Amino acid sequence: MRPFRTQAIARAFCSTANLGAGFDVFGLALDKYSDTVHARITSGKKIKILVRGPEGRNIPAELRKNSAGPPALELVRKARFKKGLEIIVEKRVPQGLGLGSSGSTAAACTKVLDNLLDLRLSNDELVRVASLGEKAIAGTAHADNVAASLLGGFVITYDNPIRTISLKPPASLAVVAATPQLPVQAGKTRKARKIIPDKIRVKNAVLNLGRAAAMAAAFAQGDIRMIGTGMEDEIAEPYRRNLIPGYDEVKRMGLEAGAAGVSISGAGPSLVALVDRKSHDPRLVARAMVRAFSQNNVRSTTFLARPAHGAGIIKGA
Amino acid sequence: MRPFRTQAIARAFCSTANLGAGFDVFGLALDKYSDTVHARITSGKKIKILVRGPEGRNIPAELRKNSAGPPALELVRKARFKKGLEIIVEKRVPQGLGLGSSGSTAAACTKVLDNLLDLRLSNDELVRVASLGEKAIAGTAHADNVAASLLGGFVITYDNPIRTISLKPPASLAVVAATPQLPVQAGKTRKARKIIPDKIRVKNAVLNLGRAAAMAAAFAQGDIRMIGTGMEDEIAEPYRRNLIPGYDEVKRMGLEAGAAGVSISGAGPSLVALVDRKSHDPRLVARAMVRAFSQNNVRSTTFLARPAHGAGIIKGA
Repeated sequence: MRPFRTQAIARAFCSTANLGAGFDVFGLALDKYSDTVHARITSGKKIKILVRGPEGRNIPAELRKNSAGPPALELVRKARFKKGLEIIVEKRVPQGLGLGSSGSTAAACTKVLDNLLDLRLSNDELVRVASLGEKAIAGTAHADNVAASLLGGFVITYDNPIRTISLKPPASLAVVAATPQLPVQAGKTRKARKIIPDKIRVKNAVLNLGRAAAMAAAFAQGDIRMIGTGMEDEIAEPYRRNLIPGYDEVKRMGLEAGAAGVSISGAGPSLVALVDRKSHDPRLVARAMVRAFSQNNVRSTTFLARPAHGAGIIKGA
Repeated sequence: MRPFRTQAIARAFCSTANLGAGFDVFGLALDKYSDTVHARITSGKKIKILVRGPEGRNIPAELRKNSAGPPALELVRKARFKKGLEIIVEKRVPQGLGLGSSGSTAAACTKVLDNLLDLRLSNDELVRVASLGEKAIAGTAHADNVAASLLGGFVITYDNPIRTISLKPPASLAVVAATPQLPVQAGKTRKARKIIPDKIRVKNAVLNLGRAAAMAAAFAQGDIRMIGTGMEDEIAEPYRRNLIPGYDEVKRMGLEAGAAGVSISGAGPSLVALVDRKSHDPRLVARAMVRAFSQNNVRSTTFLARPAHGAGIIKGA
């Protein structure tokens, strides 16, 4: 028996989802921002969430409205845990940008409670549990962001029940994120999902599945240029592009400046560009994207990131 | 200048397409059967197709009805070739089984004329040209079979214009094909395409694209068990399964006997099972599938195959 512990802390990075063709399937963890979740066993029987940190404003602490809540409830149920929990979310991933903010919290909370309650769940099961947190926010339990935040690198989430494959991204892969400064909308992800029709043409589904397969093979082979050939989407991009002023120009100018591919990051409004640092300078790509937004009278901010590792325990077993 | 040549012969293997999730996108060349095409420059200006060989009966020789015709016309146009051609198709791939018979002919014809007319087309362009032959037969220029027959191994065909990625299959991969003895239908592939609705639910498209991505990553990593996890299809299988009596049982018994995955081969009616010879005996899988067909009062035949290499010149430059 290991000594009885009463607390643990986990950290999980933000992520970009979809990457074009991989709608609801691909995620890539990014080392720019991370959330930490500190879980403490308390007397009593209540589970309580506290939200802190520089990005904690406007994040609800109610169990069913915070993405940490549903995973916590599920893990407590699985562990038949009868005491109380205090879950302190240190929120550093900005929300509303399309960088998997809710997923980072859900992933960190799932990781810390798996550790504290000594559940030792499989990767696939961790991802399934964390995706319950997304359901609280977006209305569907999409698992692409939580899978990337939990497992790190490039992750394929597929099938029902959920399976995952995690691949180490090419060493020279750089990610440029460009975020237009638009008014943040409440329930943005839910709205961005609603504008996608229920059905698509088989012809377009085939385009997406071929590109997604090509991207997966390219990640496995470490070929960044080939990854970029798949970053076109027939499911969400044709609708979500309309929510981002100047989208087509920003994409085009990012590609012209050397990006292997450019896509909407998750539900947007950020765009991500994948760049091979061996052959191109990601800063030039960033500048080109800012310029293109600017030509459309939109101010934007950018950052450069690298693929991040998976969620980890900072303090605990 | 190389010496002027007047003839060449190429051979291309048969293939299985789709492999479950990869509808119209995945192909795998199989070493069981092959077509050869012998092309000769003739005086005059006519292009003439002759069909011979053990599987040549009932194969039309008209330029627009034989899958060698449209690729030949396209290559002659590209080469600005002004003389005549005699194209002798030695047909050994049985038609109507779902093993890419028309694709083998189109691939061999494309390969031989690329060589004879000294065009030196890229792989992607060869595949595009050969796919014109499928249009003559099936009504759409699907490229999955021709890509496998041309390039060999496991091939991902995607995007518009066509791109291809060819991966070397795992060394221990064995393929079991089980063919129910059903009356052969004229225009079978065309009919099998027509029963698929024009649209599918996004939810189902996401299932397919996730599985296809997983399969591509698994082929790249040489993991046969993981390849099998993606061999489920929401596009064609729900409809085409109804054309194959006992489909569900044959699939289930194949999997129980050790197959990593079982799917309809192309437009059917053959089924293919992928088996890792390191851990399972493909003959047991074959027997289980025959037994399952038999329990549904269907006689069937099986063969074992290995992945094949791409189309090659037997005689020529």
